[in-house]
Amino acid sequence: MYAISLGDDGAELRPLEPWHAEEFLAHLDRGREFIGQYIPFGSKAIDPASARETLQRYADLRAADTASYHGIWLDGKLVGGVLTLNFDAATGNCEVGCWLEPAATGRGLITRAMRVLIDWAVEERGIHRVEWVAASGNTPSLNVARRLGMTRDGVRRQAHPYGGVRHDLEVWSILAPEWREARARAAHSDH
Amino acid sequence: MYAISLGDDGAELRPLEPWHAEEFLAHLDRGREFIGQYIPFGSKAIDPASARETLQRYADLRAADTASYHGIWLDGKLVGGVLTLNFDAATGNCEVGCWLEPAATGRGLITRAMRVLIDWAVEERGIHRVEWVAASGNTPSLNVARRLGMTRDGVRRQAHPYGGVRHDLEVWSILAPEWREARARAAHSDH
Amino acid sequence: MYAISLGDDGAELRPLEPWHAEEFLAHLDRGREFIGQYIPFGSKAIDPASARETLQRYADLRAADTASYHGIWLDGKLVGGVLTLNFDAATGNCEVGCWLEPAATGRGLITRAMRVLIDWAVEERGIHRVEWVAASGNTPSLNVARRLGMTRDGVRRQAHPYGGVRHDLEVWSILAPEWREARARAAHSDH
Amino acid sequence: MYAISLGDDGAELRPLEPWHAEEFLAHLDRGREFIGQYIPFGSKAIDPASARETLQRYADLRAADTASYHGIWLDGKLVGGVLTLNFDAATGNCEVGCWLEPAATGRGLITRAMRVLIDWAVEERGIHRVEWVAASGNTPSLNVARRLGMTRDGVRRQAHPYGGVRHDLEVWSILAPEWREARARAAHSDH
Amino acid sequence: MYAISLGDDGAELRPLEPWHAEEFLAHLDRGREFIGQYIPFGSKAIDPASARETLQRYADLRAADTASYHGIWLDGKLVGGVLTLNFDAATGNCEVGCWLEPAATGRGLITRAMRVLIDWAVEERGIHRVEWVAASGNTPSLNVARRLGMTRDGVRRQAHPYGGVRHDLEVWSILAPEWREARARAAHSDH
Amino acid sequence: MYAISLGDDGAELRPLEPWHAEEFLAHLDRGREFIGQYIPFGSKAIDPASARETLQRYADLRAADTASYHGIWLDGKLVGGVLTLNFDAATGNCEVGCWLEPAATGRGLITRAMRVLIDWAVEERGIHRVEWVAASGNTPSLNVARRLGMTRDGVRRQAHPYGGVRHDLEVWSILAPEWREARARAAHSDH
Repeated sequence: MYAISLGDDGAELRPLEPWHAEEFLAHLDRGREFIGQYIPFGSKAIDPASARETLQRYADLRAADTASYHGIWLDGKLVGGVLTLNFDAATGNCEVGCWLEPAATGRGLITRAMRVLIDWAVEERGIHRVEWVAASGNTPSLNVARRLGMTRDGVRRQAHPYGGVRHDLEVWSILAPEWREARARAAHSDH
Repeated sequence: MYAISLGDDGAELRPLEPWHAEEFLAHLDRGREFIGQYIPFGSKAIDPASARETLQRYADLRAADTASYHGIWLDGKLVGGVLTLNFDAATGNCEVGCWLEPAATGRGLITRAMRVLIDWAVEERGIHRVEWVAASGNTPSLNVARRLGMTRDGVRRQAHPYGGVRHDLEVWSILAPEWREARARAAHSDH
Repeated sequence: MYAISLGDDGAELRPLEPWHAEEFLAHLDRGREFIGQYIPFGSKAIDPASARETLQRYADLRAADTASYHGIWLDGKLVGGVLTLNFDAATGNCEVGCWLEPAATGRGLITRAMRVLIDWAVEERGIHRVEWVAASGNTPSLNVARRLGMTRDGVRRQAHPYGGVRHDLEVWSILAPEWREARARAAHSDH
Repeated sequence: MYAISLGDDGAELRPLEPWHAEEFLAHLDRGREFIGQYIPFGSKAIDPASARETLQRYADLRAADTASYHGIWLDGKLVGGVLTLNFDAATGNCEVGCWLEPAATGRGLITRAMRVLIDWAVEERGIHRVEWVAASGNTPSLNVARRLGMTRDGVRRQAHPYGGVRHDLEVWSILAPEWREARARAAHSDH
Repeated sequence: MYAISLGDDGAELRPLEPWHAEEFLAHLDRGREFIGQYIPFGSKAIDPASARETLQRYADLRAADTASYHGIWLDGKLVGGVLTLNFDAATGNCEVGCWLEPAATGRGLITRAMRVLIDWAVEERGIHRVEWVAASGNTPSLNVARRLGMTRDGVRRQAHPYGGVRHDLEVWSILAPEWREARARAAHSDH
Repeated sequence: MYAISLGDDGAELRPLEPWHAEEFLAHLDRGREFIGQYIPFGSKAIDPASARETLQRYADLRAADTASYHGIWLDGKLVGGVLTLNFDAATGNCEVGCWLEPAATGRGLITRAMRVLIDWAVEERGIHRVEWVAASGNTPSLNVARRLGMTRDGVRRQAHPYGGVRHDLEVWSILAPEWREARARAAHSDH
């Protein structure tokens, strides 16, 4: 029912919910290898039942206000999404993240969706610190953090065992005042 | 984050969530007596903590896909809402309902919001039968059912003890094909 | 341990409990097709373990005082039963229902058992409205409602998808004063 | 609904359920001191809400088939009861117990009720060993065990701290074959 | 991390925890038949997953302070253990028990470990009555009870169905003052 | 029962468990202001019941193998402790932390206890990365990290709202090979 336009190309952000199980599974199947390069996102969703379980887990986290998952639909097709994680309104901290199938890359979808999401977190929910965590080798992800105006806080050495290797995890963040300033700058440069 | 415009007067439909507790409480306090004429909606939400508990209960029902609560905001103020209840995608049945504070009546807000909600239930979620239940004396509510093109299925005699009286409950419904036809008719008459 | 005689033919009403799993399964197996014509009663009880799970679910509902299941034993054999459902002592509402294997039909077992059950609901538990719900095509069930003195409240159109068809559901009811009057009349006509 | 006559004096055994909370409380209030001499039975039921909680706990144990509580009604008044405890159909073991308000003593109510209960446990539920546990000083209770034909298995020294003293607990039991023999003897001596 | 030396032969007592699953399984596999002569200890732990589940169950009981499981390691190999059961600090009662693989018998490991365990129960946790329960035919187990200075409280006749037979269960106990006296005597006789 | 000597001054490390509630409370009451300078450790434990609840929460985390709390006893008095947090054996990551009442500072108790704890995490549980998190202003805590041979991974800017200020959080870590090397060096320099 709810949808937020992400631009003139028909891209939309919508709540990702358990009844999207089949769409979600088809989307994962198109992008599984690409999406799974650095994170196990969706790796347990391998058939309609497990896809529904995965989405149900997301729905339960959302009901508890500790996470929220939002799909990106392009021409009516689910192609990726953005999410909040470790969302804690009481301390004003949250993490954000994303995933995308390969055919939808190169259009700035994540950056556009992330701007909507961080705006909501900062302006509507009172989040002060928005964190981004990605493996050191995950250049596209780190580029999004950079594009969003984030600062690199440090590197949690060898914190992420994945695919047989212990990856370093870069931690980036943007604080509410920084976000507002970056947005103002962006608005200005649009003219 | 999500909002659906209900028309040119700035009315919007948005997911009603636990973090709206204070707005929800203020809204109830403005309309408590009016809203509570025939139903105990919101009667347990009497301070910020209990308002949050009530909204958390709604959030849990939504996560279980058995209900959904949507607020109507007018000029940025929460003034009422619409909801699904006993939502059962497996059998294609659901109930819908609504509430409104008195200052927001007379603008067709409920009918407008209900059209969005029923459209979603029927077209996106595959609901076949949408049910409306109201006390026989609740004329405004029954008028909404009529306006939405619903049919009166019967009267569950004395089924609703409330305010010291056992009220009859009218049951109205509209089926998916009837809904589509009514919508087509309405679209036609708009021109 | 507990049993209520239903008449001179040895028919008895007893609480139906998890330890009856094997009897329950054998009974269902004798009547599965007949019992399942309009309702999925017992359809998940297909071996001793699932029969026990079904009865455990009934036991949990009974502990929560929202339902109660009572078997009818004829010559020591479980042949059917009656039940309360959506039992709500606070509002004075409940639904009642029944099932029977084919070999036990035609003896008025259900009507006899139902009289005991409704008497208990109305006189011991303070239920004001007893409801009966059956598919429009389920003539034997509707006849029981009629025989018990119930009134038809209406028809919930196409509310019951079952066996590939959306059945209309008739809603009948009897109110406490009507029940007492009907019983008095019946007692009088017995003489 | 269910009731078992315990004899010509109108005494009846019935399932004791949460909706009996007020009767149960009134009964406890008449016998609290007497009932509480050696055991804390009902000590947490001190107002309608806590009485209901106590009975709900019993109902949950019954649903789990690990205990069952049965009230004794004399002339329509709840005056005591019998119970199974640590009921384990898988191993064929259970404990039985009782309580009574003082005004109802001296009529053999417990012995009569216990016979019904043990018969059910042994003959319907397949219990092989029925155990009775009472403080060494609780002569009336030990006399019931003796009257039921039980054997003293031993004394669990100082196992029961109650009222500032560590009481010895006598353990008595009767096995299924012994029970059947005792009953046959009793039946014979009745003639 | 924690370990208590049980003597000069390198025997140690350590908390037995879920992460010991593989060691626990290997140990059970060496002693399954011997350990299972009179009790079903460890019988559900037949592969790494079920071994972990068994140990997790123990961990949950320990968190609830109703039981505690302690392994005996000999030369770095898990060979058996001792446990508390039905531990109830409020009433000052607990049961203790043990198990051992055959290759580790004859060294007094259980008696040594049990002394540590009972000392802790009596002196640190305030247990007044320590109980020992074993099948009448389980001579080695009854000998431990005797060696620990316990008294035979009685015999729960045919209480333990196991291996197709209903075994009598002997109940032994030692009270806190008795334990202290026995220990003093033992200390004295050591000189 | 279990205790690990931390040196010649009688300091001991022991599991901190719910039955220590009164000792824990007395300890907190001696050090509440000091302990609470940068973290809310123990702030909810203000009477025996809440102290027990706090320790019970720790016990449940330990049963789930996601945390462990260990008290430091000096001359038989609980004076502080060390803990693991976010313990994840599957990924080989954990956090460690500590607290101390003021009278026990200056003796190296934390460093000694932490060496035991990290040894266990690394050598017995296979943890690869041990993390230390402290507010930038918490010099004593950061000094422990330094003393343990940890490396500063970065600073999570303004991540910790506490006492009206958003503190920066320093993240330090030591990896298993680094730990082993540091220990070897320390052992060498002891001679």
